[in-house]
Amino acid sequence: MSETVQLIPGDSLITATPQEGRELAIKMARLIIKVTQPDAEIRGKLRGVYAEDPAMLIAVGQTVAIEFATIAAANNYWR
Amino acid sequence: MSETVQLIPGDSLITATPQEGRELAIKMARLIIKVTQPDAEIRGKLRGVYAEDPAMLIAVGQTVAIEFATIAAANNYWR
Amino acid sequence: MSETVQLIPGDSLITATPQEGRELAIKMARLIIKVTQPDAEIRGKLRGVYAEDPAMLIAVGQTVAIEFATIAAANNYWR
Amino acid sequence: MSETVQLIPGDSLITATPQEGRELAIKMARLIIKVTQPDAEIRGKLRGVYAEDPAMLIAVGQTVAIEFATIAAANNYWR
Amino acid sequence: MSETVQLIPGDSLITATPQEGRELAIKMARLIIKVTQPDAEIRGKLRGVYAEDPAMLIAVGQTVAIEFATIAAANNYWR
Amino acid sequence: MSETVQLIPGDSLITATPQEGRELAIKMARLIIKVTQPDAEIRGKLRGVYAEDPAMLIAVGQTVAIEFATIAAANNYWR
Repeated sequence: MSETVQLIPGDSLITATPQEGRELAIKMARLIIKVTQPDAEIRGKLRGVYAEDPAMLIAVGQTVAIEFATIAAANNYWR
Repeated sequence: MSETVQLIPGDSLITATPQEGRELAIKMARLIIKVTQPDAEIRGKLRGVYAEDPAMLIAVGQTVAIEFATIAAANNYWR
Repeated sequence: MSETVQLIPGDSLITATPQEGRELAIKMARLIIKVTQPDAEIRGKLRGVYAEDPAMLIAVGQTVAIEFATIAAANNYWR
Repeated sequence: MSETVQLIPGDSLITATPQEGRELAIKMARLIIKVTQPDAEIRGKLRGVYAEDPAMLIAVGQTVAIEFATIAAANNYWR
Repeated sequence: MSETVQLIPGDSLITATPQEGRELAIKMARLIIKVTQPDAEIRGKLRGVYAEDPAMLIAVGQTVAIEFATIAAANNYWR
Repeated sequence: MSETVQLIPGDSLITATPQEGRELAIKMARLIIKVTQPDAEIRGKLRGVYAEDPAMLIAVGQTVAIEFATIAAANNYWR
């Protein structure tokens, strides 16, 4: 991993709304895949695979759910 | 992902009851699949696959359980 | 999902004992499978599959463990 | 599931030591498999399968880890 | 499981450093596999399998991460 | 595992920023794979496999998400 890759947009877990927190969770999950597979062309090809594979789509959902749990706690659940 | 997709109905994790929290968890999990696979026709086809696959149904249950954990904490467990 | 499906028996995470909390976790996990696959006949067939598949049985255990973590926290661990 | 199956030995998450907490986590994980597959003969056969399958053994470990997290929190980590 | 198997070295989750906490997480994860598959020869053979299987190595990492989360909380994150 | 392998760079979960916390999560996840498969050549070969396998990439993301949850809590979410 190049240390200069931005892994968290804005370098903060704090967001104004739950919606933005959810968007951040999706981005953070994708950025891990990006640093693990830096080749954009390969990632594009793999994306075509998992976007049509129900088991992988469910696994994507689990990953986002875990990231979101952290973000939600960071924001005191936007209470 | 289009930034305009609604990822959390009502843009809030707060619900009146545990039942509504559970419904929200299901919706949030489904919306992640929706933004990852925006094509409704493909999603419908994949749904037919995972709804008859026991391993995938169990995985759906894990995803909802993780989402619900966050929602339940946000609501102080509706104590 | 029909909004009228009961997802949490009693609509509460509070239980008198850990045993009842565990039973609730099992029921909550099953109800997610029920709303995802509403056809009782298909569910019965799938149940026959996962009940004899060790990997799926372990995955069922993971799901219940996650649900129970939330219920236990809601009950302050019945301390 | 028969409601009379004991799902948590002693019906308490409180243990004297971390070691006992770990043993409880193992038992709780096994009891979920037991209520999901009540036939002892089938369970014995399946146990022979997962005990020699590295991926399933790792999954057993994940399940126990999740159960233990709850038990450890219940006991304030035996601090 | 023989009740006499040591599942947590030192029977405590408290460690002096994060490094030691991480080592404890690895040991705790391995001890669960040990009680589930007590035959050292079989474990050795299975280890040869998962050590060369990328999906299983990743799953080992998930298990250790879950164990470590508990240990880190027990130690107030060594703050 | 050789006890002398460094499992957490700097032997601390505290980081200055979320970005550094995320980098730490990635490193910690990789170091578990390293102690489980100490042969650098084999690891390099396996990396070529999982970097082109979408299901494994998603699983890597889950592992990092779990590690990060712990690091974020340790840092009070950098609030």
